Amino acid sequence: MSSCLTCRLFYDHSETINRKGGCYQLKKQEYSPRTDLAIEAKEMFVEENPDKKHELDGIIIKEYEEENIKLTRVEINEQGSERVGKNPGQYITIESLKLRELNQTFENQVASVLGKEIDRLLKYHEVNEGARCLVVGLGNSYVTPDALGPDTVKKAYITSHLFKYHEGVVGEGFRPVSAFNPGVMGLTGMETSNMINGIVKELNPDFLIVIDALAARSIDRVNTTIQLSDAGIHPGSGVGNDRKEVSEKTLGVPVFSIGIPTVVDAVTITSDTIDYLLKHFGRELETGDQPSKSLVPAGMSFGEKKQLTDEDLPDEEVRERFLGVVGMLEIEEKRQLIQEVLRPLGHDLMVTPKDVDDVIIHMSKIIASGINQGLHQSITNENASDYIR
Amino acid sequence: MSSCLTCRLFYDHSETINRKGGCYQLKKQEYSPRTDLAIEAKEMFVEENPDKKHELDGIIIKEYEEENIKLTRVEINEQGSERVGKNPGQYITIESLKLRELNQTFENQVASVLGKEIDRLLKYHEVNEGARCLVVGLGNSYVTPDALGPDTVKKAYITSHLFKYHEGVVGEGFRPVSAFNPGVMGLTGMETSNMINGIVKELNPDFLIVIDALAARSIDRVNTTIQLSDAGIHPGSGVGNDRKEVSEKTLGVPVFSIGIPTVVDAVTITSDTIDYLLKHFGRELETGDQPSKSLVPAGMSFGEKKQLTDEDLPDEEVRERFLGVVGMLEIEEKRQLIQEVLRPLGHDLMVTPKDVDDVIIHMSKIIASGINQGLHQSITNENASDYIR
Amino acid sequence: MSSCLTCRLFYDHSETINRKGGCYQLKKQEYSPRTDLAIEAKEMFVEENPDKKHELDGIIIKEYEEENIKLTRVEINEQGSERVGKNPGQYITIESLKLRELNQTFENQVASVLGKEIDRLLKYHEVNEGARCLVVGLGNSYVTPDALGPDTVKKAYITSHLFKYHEGVVGEGFRPVSAFNPGVMGLTGMETSNMINGIVKELNPDFLIVIDALAARSIDRVNTTIQLSDAGIHPGSGVGNDRKEVSEKTLGVPVFSIGIPTVVDAVTITSDTIDYLLKHFGRELETGDQPSKSLVPAGMSFGEKKQLTDEDLPDEEVRERFLGVVGMLEIEEKRQLIQEVLRPLGHDLMVTPKDVDDVIIHMSKIIASGINQGLHQSITNENASDYIR
Amino acid sequence: MSSCLTCRLFYDHSETINRKGGCYQLKKQEYSPRTDLAIEAKEMFVEENPDKKHELDGIIIKEYEEENIKLTRVEINEQGSERVGKNPGQYITIESLKLRELNQTFENQVASVLGKEIDRLLKYHEVNEGARCLVVGLGNSYVTPDALGPDTVKKAYITSHLFKYHEGVVGEGFRPVSAFNPGVMGLTGMETSNMINGIVKELNPDFLIVIDALAARSIDRVNTTIQLSDAGIHPGSGVGNDRKEVSEKTLGVPVFSIGIPTVVDAVTITSDTIDYLLKHFGRELETGDQPSKSLVPAGMSFGEKKQLTDEDLPDEEVRERFLGVVGMLEIEEKRQLIQEVLRPLGHDLMVTPKDVDDVIIHMSKIIASGINQGLHQSITNENASDYIR
Repeated sequence: MSSCLTCRLFYDHSETINRKGGCYQLKKQEYSPRTDLAIEAKEMFVEENPDKKHELDGIIIKEYEEENIKLTRVEINEQGSERVGKNPGQYITIESLKLRELNQTFENQVASVLGKEIDRLLKYHEVNEGARCLVVGLGNSYVTPDALGPDTVKKAYITSHLFKYHEGVVGEGFRPVSAFNPGVMGLTGMETSNMINGIVKELNPDFLIVIDALAARSIDRVNTTIQLSDAGIHPGSGVGNDRKEVSEKTLGVPVFSIGIPTVVDAVTITSDTIDYLLKHFGRELETGDQPSKSLVPAGMSFGEKKQLTDEDLPDEEVRERFLGVVGMLEIEEKRQLIQEVLRPLGHDLMVTPKDVDDVIIHMSKIIASGINQGLHQSITNENASDYIR
Repeated sequence: MSSCLTCRLFYDHSETINRKGGCYQLKKQEYSPRTDLAIEAKEMFVEENPDKKHELDGIIIKEYEEENIKLTRVEINEQGSERVGKNPGQYITIESLKLRELNQTFENQVASVLGKEIDRLLKYHEVNEGARCLVVGLGNSYVTPDALGPDTVKKAYITSHLFKYHEGVVGEGFRPVSAFNPGVMGLTGMETSNMINGIVKELNPDFLIVIDALAARSIDRVNTTIQLSDAGIHPGSGVGNDRKEVSEKTLGVPVFSIGIPTVVDAVTITSDTIDYLLKHFGRELETGDQPSKSLVPAGMSFGEKKQLTDEDLPDEEVRERFLGVVGMLEIEEKRQLIQEVLRPLGHDLMVTPKDVDDVIIHMSKIIASGINQGLHQSITNENASDYIR
Repeated sequence: MSSCLTCRLFYDHSETINRKGGCYQLKKQEYSPRTDLAIEAKEMFVEENPDKKHELDGIIIKEYEEENIKLTRVEINEQGSERVGKNPGQYITIESLKLRELNQTFENQVASVLGKEIDRLLKYHEVNEGARCLVVGLGNSYVTPDALGPDTVKKAYITSHLFKYHEGVVGEGFRPVSAFNPGVMGLTGMETSNMINGIVKELNPDFLIVIDALAARSIDRVNTTIQLSDAGIHPGSGVGNDRKEVSEKTLGVPVFSIGIPTVVDAVTITSDTIDYLLKHFGRELETGDQPSKSLVPAGMSFGEKKQLTDEDLPDEEVRERFLGVVGMLEIEEKRQLIQEVLRPLGHDLMVTPKDVDDVIIHMSKIIASGINQGLHQSITNENASDYIR
Repeated sequence: MSSCLTCRLFYDHSETINRKGGCYQLKKQEYSPRTDLAIEAKEMFVEENPDKKHELDGIIIKEYEEENIKLTRVEINEQGSERVGKNPGQYITIESLKLRELNQTFENQVASVLGKEIDRLLKYHEVNEGARCLVVGLGNSYVTPDALGPDTVKKAYITSHLFKYHEGVVGEGFRPVSAFNPGVMGLTGMETSNMINGIVKELNPDFLIVIDALAARSIDRVNTTIQLSDAGIHPGSGVGNDRKEVSEKTLGVPVFSIGIPTVVDAVTITSDTIDYLLKHFGRELETGDQPSKSLVPAGMSFGEKKQLTDEDLPDEEVRERFLGVVGMLEIEEKRQLIQEVLRPLGHDLMVTPKDVDDVIIHMSKIIASGINQGLHQSITNENASDYIR
């Protein structure tokens, strides 16, 4: 899968170099992460190794759910790391389809949950209350769906200069926080990881929080999932072997990353939808309906969103009947096939929901508020709005 | 198909009302245009009536091609109108995949072609050189992919006030041009057509040019096709029967519309891709390759973009083998099925390419320049850049 | 005083026509309002007619003050109208230097005061609770200090379409509100008043609220004063005799206007400062200090902002001693002199405070919230933030 | 003079800390540069030491003028440095009142002149054609008049990553250029100079180009003067003694700075205007007119802008007659007096011309184009527009 040097996440369909910015692709990227989300990596592993479903020894999963928010804590050790292709560490996801409604009251709840998880993770790493933090906003502030990082940095509460030049101003319960937007390689000409390295050496922070917009590997995830992790991050501009990690291993201090999938490619949309079709047929058969009925509009009579699960996936015979050879492909084979067909046509577009402007405004506010609450003991859900710029 | 009152093109996945703006859906929209593009309407008619391929009596099509630009003039009379479900009139499309490269030199060529077609259409309607024009930019300036209209209005050369208050300033070869952005119903509370009506009654222009961002009905069209027409336009905010036309019939003066598809829904992406898969299999079989080979990455070895055409579509037996029952569905049945599955899941998203910010900057400039050249004899391709704001 | 057709408030220093937008000046404007603020008009009258200080029969002034907010209600009848050159009617100003601090808690208080004054004015005009409102945002959304009107419209709670298409959604205590941004003549080619006229005829609202950014006639007013009035407004694009009023007289329904001075010219800054110098000398002499001491930095030792009042203005002899002939000029003579000197040099700039981006964000929110509270009985200071977009 | 940690150039009128961003002032700044422009520093020296007018031994000045552009090269050696309070080095100013007209054709000329001067300066410093450049955009991208640096970086042609990952793409006549926006202390919590230091150590560029928006010390300079220098720069966030220089001395490689004054304070506006008044009276007396006539509008009868020069300044007696004690003050005394009066009133505003949005768009394009032409032999005035993003 190739990605673009300018905007990082956009799969370029053009081989030519567009000199004056926009988007171009210099080199096929050999390395492709299966997914940025550990929760997806685990699902993909189970899908591809259904027999090993119960052998996920190196992976501990805990799930909590309350009022439309699903919180999942995944812990991956060295053994699990090899299986799912993710660094060892903790991966916390906060999920809710309700995030797509852009409802401010609900968003305050989510920010509070995020703040508590950040606090929990800091304590787990024995980061003390006065430890100095550097917040890094990855991404391109001129490409709306990629501006999540810089927009969060703009809204977070920054205090280092207050501690240095006017200590009296900052009361109890605050820590020194600095922030920085490295930009993207297409605008800076530099590897993002090098820039972070330079600033870290100069500033010597005690730990980092890195924010990034992610590419989703399933439609469900777009603008519905926040991942917090202590396992490091790969800034997206990676090319070939130079794709450098930003992590405790490379920087020597804990690195916590926060990401939200804001874009998705046409391959994923199609692949997911074919899966939904199969499950839909499975469900219809299961519930005794005639499959033919499925071609008649069913409406949304149940008042709330339907859920299709892996249990709905029908057996091979049904899959072949409804979707032929394609219906029987494994998920990665299907993706590969679709990509192979779309790319030469110039249609393997990376897309984002149409209301992306509003989405980024809301999501960056949630993350900034979560960070503020997680970093400063004196910022709570009650006074959080006073510290958002 | 339901659309949103606020942002007009976004299919809302949420049934709740989001009070504070963003996106909400008040009522299922019964009326759904098959497509905004006449060229697609005709293709759809042919697809659904393959036997009538040669009976398109009421539709005259002329195609021209030069240097990456395909120009198609479709003329639909009353008889043809009924068949394809579009108003009678002329529909000119200027198409090029190269538009996605955001190359300024090429864009100047496209603007010049657009300018000439506008000029041709004005002469056809016997609009004289001094006739007064009102340019209307439909859409929501706060939603990037829907901001095509307002952004074009901002860049076009407006002259009415110069004629009125400082006639000497405007030389030969210019006409009085006014402009106006009505906004969208979610922001104004008013029907767009009513607002246009009010301004037209007050200003009494001799003709209108109306610009709008469209929803594409195929991936190919997104940011690659400009349609110019004299057949009127339906501002997107329409709800039920109130969806009011803006046309010569309703306003009494010629209405020319210019549109570019900037958004597409997940249904279209999936439906198109399934078609590409079928054609891909057909092509592979045809060229003697084993279909199984198609599961191996084929690369982009041919140096230029591949084209898959209707000729590549294999026969029913092959379609069933590779894509089962779904592979044998007619295009509209397939769309209906996909929509029925995606909507209850909350995934019938309306999306836009990730680089939408740059796309709108470039597209609005092309249209503004085309309008300037089409309206004013003294603005030519040579001096066009001097009149773009 | 000449103003610009494009951006309305900017005094153009260039005589040439800048074809591609920006700013140009077509014709000297003969008509110049003394000031947009009634409170200033009255002050100017008193200054120029010190002997008539106690004869302001046609003008009733009531002042209230609480917690940093000064509320003044000026009522001008026909007799007073002639004296101060303002239409008869009510003019309410809400003033506070604290508005420059961009403090959100304080701004909520101000919005609440504004909401109550709007409510009071509506009741005075016997506008009932269900009467339909049209909000008009004057100004140029592309020129930050002139974007107050359009930005307010974007944030206000618009309901007309909800009443029409989904009545159940809107509960008790709301009224139908529509909104509309006419733009400025340089962008539309049309007189703003004509556009409003066209929309009003089509929509037939029961009353209007019109928002505009104003030019201040004193430094004190910039971003510190909100004026609410029922006396109509002159959209700024006026040229010669065509400067058309927007008022109950011209439209047939009540017109309430809300304005904040966001720009000021170099003439005003200088003229005001010379006055401050004179008062400063007067104060220093009065308090027994040697005037020479005033040349030594005095610091800000008193902990709060100093106030210089008309009482501090010294007698003629002192004024001549410190500022010569210029010190003895009347205020309008002084302005005329300064303008005569600055204009030929190209330095009669219209300026705005450097943090204008933030100022407009905050001010438009205050006005939108005030309008929401004033128009809808169910929106109160407690839930106001839920209705701001 | 105190400046603000958040927006750097804005003189804060409030003593309170505004927690949620915006603008605050932590500490009185003791150190105040006389001016950022060497050409002004020299003028100020001459004004204050009229007797030493001919003793500027350490300062060499060469002036060139063509078609509305005035080019001045000031060379300051160690001796001159002490006199005028500027680092030794070369200071080139490109001046034109015509820059305020925002005329694109003229701006291309100015960019070309700037490009040639950059090229000349690089050769003077024996920077070879392949030497690697780091462009640094100082300032706050969220405060329009302070966004000159970041906006220029966005538009410049960046090539380092092309050299590294796709050397074939870059032809002859280009050099590796990287770029970086450090942000301002109020947003990052860090000293700008420290951030630059960190990046420079990591990247090891051969030289730097640093762009910044400046505060003007005279109205004439606002948006009319571009200064290019090799003498280093002080990022504006300086506080007390920590105001750290960015220069060849501190970084070990040549540092070239480019600045344009985009803001001015009320003190400067008033002080300048009082000077213009004095010169105006001097000129009127000289030309035999009665001074009283000056109170009558003089119009702009001469078709082009008037110039008032130091020769027009009248003698002491006249100055006292027209402007009393104030008229006889030295320029710095006058500034001090005005500031002392305005600050306690909260009116020592830092302002920017109302059309600042357009100004920054145009100025950043001029500088980016000048940098492109100065850095890359293959970019000339003819193809410059192809390399601006």
